[in-house]
Amino acid sequence: MLLLDAHCHAITTEELDADAFGLWSTEASVPPPPGVSYLDGPAGLAIRRWCAPVLDLPAHAPAEEYLARRAELGAVEASRRLLRAAGLAELLVDTGLPGGLTGPALAEAAVARYAEVVRLETVAERVAAAGVSAGNFAPAFDAALAEATGEAAAVKSILAYRCGLDIDPRRPSRREVTEAAGQWLGANAKRLADAVLLRHLLWSAVDLGLPIQLHTGFGDRDLSLPRSDPSLLQPWLAAVEPSGVPIVLLHCYPYHRQAGWLAHVYPNVYLDVGLTLTHTGPRAAAVLAEYFELAPFGKILYSSDAYGLAELYLVGAEQFRWSLSALLQDWPDAERVARAVGADNARRVYRR
Amino acid sequence: MLLLDAHCHAITTEELDADAFGLWSTEASVPPPPGVSYLDGPAGLAIRRWCAPVLDLPAHAPAEEYLARRAELGAVEASRRLLRAAGLAELLVDTGLPGGLTGPALAEAAVARYAEVVRLETVAERVAAAGVSAGNFAPAFDAALAEATGEAAAVKSILAYRCGLDIDPRRPSRREVTEAAGQWLGANAKRLADAVLLRHLLWSAVDLGLPIQLHTGFGDRDLSLPRSDPSLLQPWLAAVEPSGVPIVLLHCYPYHRQAGWLAHVYPNVYLDVGLTLTHTGPRAAAVLAEYFELAPFGKILYSSDAYGLAELYLVGAEQFRWSLSALLQDWPDAERVARAVGADNARRVYRR
Amino acid sequence: MLLLDAHCHAITTEELDADAFGLWSTEASVPPPPGVSYLDGPAGLAIRRWCAPVLDLPAHAPAEEYLARRAELGAVEASRRLLRAAGLAELLVDTGLPGGLTGPALAEAAVARYAEVVRLETVAERVAAAGVSAGNFAPAFDAALAEATGEAAAVKSILAYRCGLDIDPRRPSRREVTEAAGQWLGANAKRLADAVLLRHLLWSAVDLGLPIQLHTGFGDRDLSLPRSDPSLLQPWLAAVEPSGVPIVLLHCYPYHRQAGWLAHVYPNVYLDVGLTLTHTGPRAAAVLAEYFELAPFGKILYSSDAYGLAELYLVGAEQFRWSLSALLQDWPDAERVARAVGADNARRVYRR
Repeated sequence: MLLLDAHCHAITTEELDADAFGLWSTEASVPPPPGVSYLDGPAGLAIRRWCAPVLDLPAHAPAEEYLARRAELGAVEASRRLLRAAGLAELLVDTGLPGGLTGPALAEAAVARYAEVVRLETVAERVAAAGVSAGNFAPAFDAALAEATGEAAAVKSILAYRCGLDIDPRRPSRREVTEAAGQWLGANAKRLADAVLLRHLLWSAVDLGLPIQLHTGFGDRDLSLPRSDPSLLQPWLAAVEPSGVPIVLLHCYPYHRQAGWLAHVYPNVYLDVGLTLTHTGPRAAAVLAEYFELAPFGKILYSSDAYGLAELYLVGAEQFRWSLSALLQDWPDAERVARAVGADNARRVYRR
Repeated sequence: MLLLDAHCHAITTEELDADAFGLWSTEASVPPPPGVSYLDGPAGLAIRRWCAPVLDLPAHAPAEEYLARRAELGAVEASRRLLRAAGLAELLVDTGLPGGLTGPALAEAAVARYAEVVRLETVAERVAAAGVSAGNFAPAFDAALAEATGEAAAVKSILAYRCGLDIDPRRPSRREVTEAAGQWLGANAKRLADAVLLRHLLWSAVDLGLPIQLHTGFGDRDLSLPRSDPSLLQPWLAAVEPSGVPIVLLHCYPYHRQAGWLAHVYPNVYLDVGLTLTHTGPRAAAVLAEYFELAPFGKILYSSDAYGLAELYLVGAEQFRWSLSALLQDWPDAERVARAVGADNARRVYRR
Repeated sequence: MLLLDAHCHAITTEELDADAFGLWSTEASVPPPPGVSYLDGPAGLAIRRWCAPVLDLPAHAPAEEYLARRAELGAVEASRRLLRAAGLAELLVDTGLPGGLTGPALAEAAVARYAEVVRLETVAERVAAAGVSAGNFAPAFDAALAEATGEAAAVKSILAYRCGLDIDPRRPSRREVTEAAGQWLGANAKRLADAVLLRHLLWSAVDLGLPIQLHTGFGDRDLSLPRSDPSLLQPWLAAVEPSGVPIVLLHCYPYHRQAGWLAHVYPNVYLDVGLTLTHTGPRAAAVLAEYFELAPFGKILYSSDAYGLAELYLVGAEQFRWSLSALLQDWPDAERVARAVGADNARRVYRR
């Protein structure tokens, strides 16, 4: 089954040593302590299981052999093989993270169609870097967002990383935005973490009308996990509901049951399994099943959230296929549900 | 095994079209977006699995065929069949929600004994509607509660929907109650959401001495999920413990593990699996098992929390029987534990 | 496989009647209500499964037969058998809880090596009891801690029981400590629950450099469960990271997935499964698997957290062996991972 990978990122095509590869395979941002290997964990097992055969090794080949073979092929050729093997119909790439291979070229390497996901905070930081007055920030951002999203499939917010999901649900007034912009622009205007401005970005996105992807749940340690629980978004979800704009909750783990309930009771809320299946290794099938406890099946979406390593595209896809077929094996309509979650729901939500 | 359904509600016997039936089958309060069907989800699968045979269709018959057959039989006859097939010894009906068939007539249709569960907030709103002064609210409520519960098996609070479970544990003073009643009665005195008054209702119920059922965890979107975590009740549970009044935590998902711990360490706290098994479809067995991780088996109770559709009585009962027998298959004393959780614990707690 | 039990406590060798034994087998602190038996629950099943054969009874013998046989052998002989059967290479004993058999004699009864875990709050309370001025509290505590930990493997904090884990991450100033000490010493200076002083204890432990074990998640009802979520520690974990001191999160359930993420993204954070497997009975294998969803395998540690009953040493060990072998049955490198989690990781972290 070809998948629509509805949230993914650039990869690096540099040659990586074991430490660099290990670090890329996790959400960690610093090396492990002596005696601990990041590849000796759930994601490492998944890489050995699914990627080794694509590089002509037996499944579960040891990590050292895998890395030696990868180096022998070269990162470019290995990445090309891994991307093609992932079996992707289309990539929706969040271009807010840098990387050696991204955008249409990345999709081409995967033999897949391409569309962009525009990161709201990146657009705002670009507007600030280009020079703007506080009073002009709001219209300048809105114009930049409209221009940046002309061909885009969705926008994305990393609000969880910047101020947490427990936000004031109201649309900030123009005056509040101008004041907050004045403070931010008057400081260094680099990393946007002001809650008023972040809310403005979200509400501008609601006005735009494209589906909004929101990082929720785990990720790297820049976020506060308790403040990334998607159920904290309830007041905002209620406030945006009249717009009908689809809100896609990404990742969600370990709050995916909370997210499933949100998808059950808010008509415009969707559930994306990205990131979770990659990092939970042999437990992915057990975890995926929990996404199916409350959400209508038309609300569940696939993505890999792959970033950095081409391996994570293949691991995301294969963990999903394996886990979903384990889950659905005795269900009526299994094939239809699998196609819906793997691609058809995304086609409908993102109008692809 | 005949079950004691310790928390359930009225059903409608109107003829329902597919949209209305789909909406009743969920905790959602508005229709799904285009392309999404509420029946294409966990509860829909459970209805097709358990209810289709009772209406003479094969298990897992498609939803459309099921609804056509239901219409052919008529809602009254279909509901009668479903209620009888549920195999219930007794119903404890929360009469705080309206519906076409409720109270003793509902139990009669299920060929089961009947007792009432009196909703505290409904009694308070009735007292206000009848006209009462602020200073007389407290004694008038207490008198109305005593009268309403003469034959009742339990009372129930929907505090979670009205102000959340993170309440001040203290019994409010008479003066505080009068002040709060003055404000509420001076406004429109419809939906009671004042935390002081809600606490007064709870403490009056403690004085009454009947078991108190508390909505916790998921439900419809009127509640704040983070504020419905039953572990937020710890201070209040400690405060009411000397009374010995049984406190039954209903539903609990996705905080059922927290609730299991409360039932483990507070002697008068009980755990009710209602609502959860109905809405988690094929995952019910996996979820039910989590209720058995910390709670003593004498603390776990069955209910369906069925509301609106007779189907939810049958689905609740059959999901429970199937899940419990899957859980207990290799356990010693399995039969005794099953009878305890299915009916005997409830007989003891509710003195039936 | 011999295990290193990295967190455990004293046991009683008094003869226990059924009620006392039942209470010791749980985290409850008061008897159950009529009709409920603490032994009729998950831990009771585990005791019957694993301990009965060691006392010459068939597995799953009824609780009454088990207690009769235990009385026949005498608590001392029964405890000796159970401790030896646990198959422990070494015990790291938290000596902060009293009991009939503890310290080196306990390890000797288990035919295991011994090292101490020093409870920070106990040292502080001893310093206060011995008499100290507010201004001298900080240096007196530091000196007492240094002396108490000369041979220790680790220190432990029960911060979760005293003020919750949502602490100010900063090291308190000397002046703040003196002020707080003045208030505590001026009151009764018994149970230390002042957040400033508790933080001083933690930071003194960081300076000392031994691994720090932290109670997180469930336990007895003295703690606030919502405030025992280990993810609340994020700011403090970030603050102590430069020290490189290992922080071991004990128990964690029902927040073990949050804890797994902490172990994934903070290099010096470790995950200990103690207490959880004992109290979740037949569900232990399902629960243990969830600890392996995000944490690198080099970060997961075994302990029993046994206290009071020798049975809990055996139950902890056997539940772990059974659950781990069920989890790893199809994994590559299963044997190595099992040895790492069962003992080798602890040897490295605690320098044994």
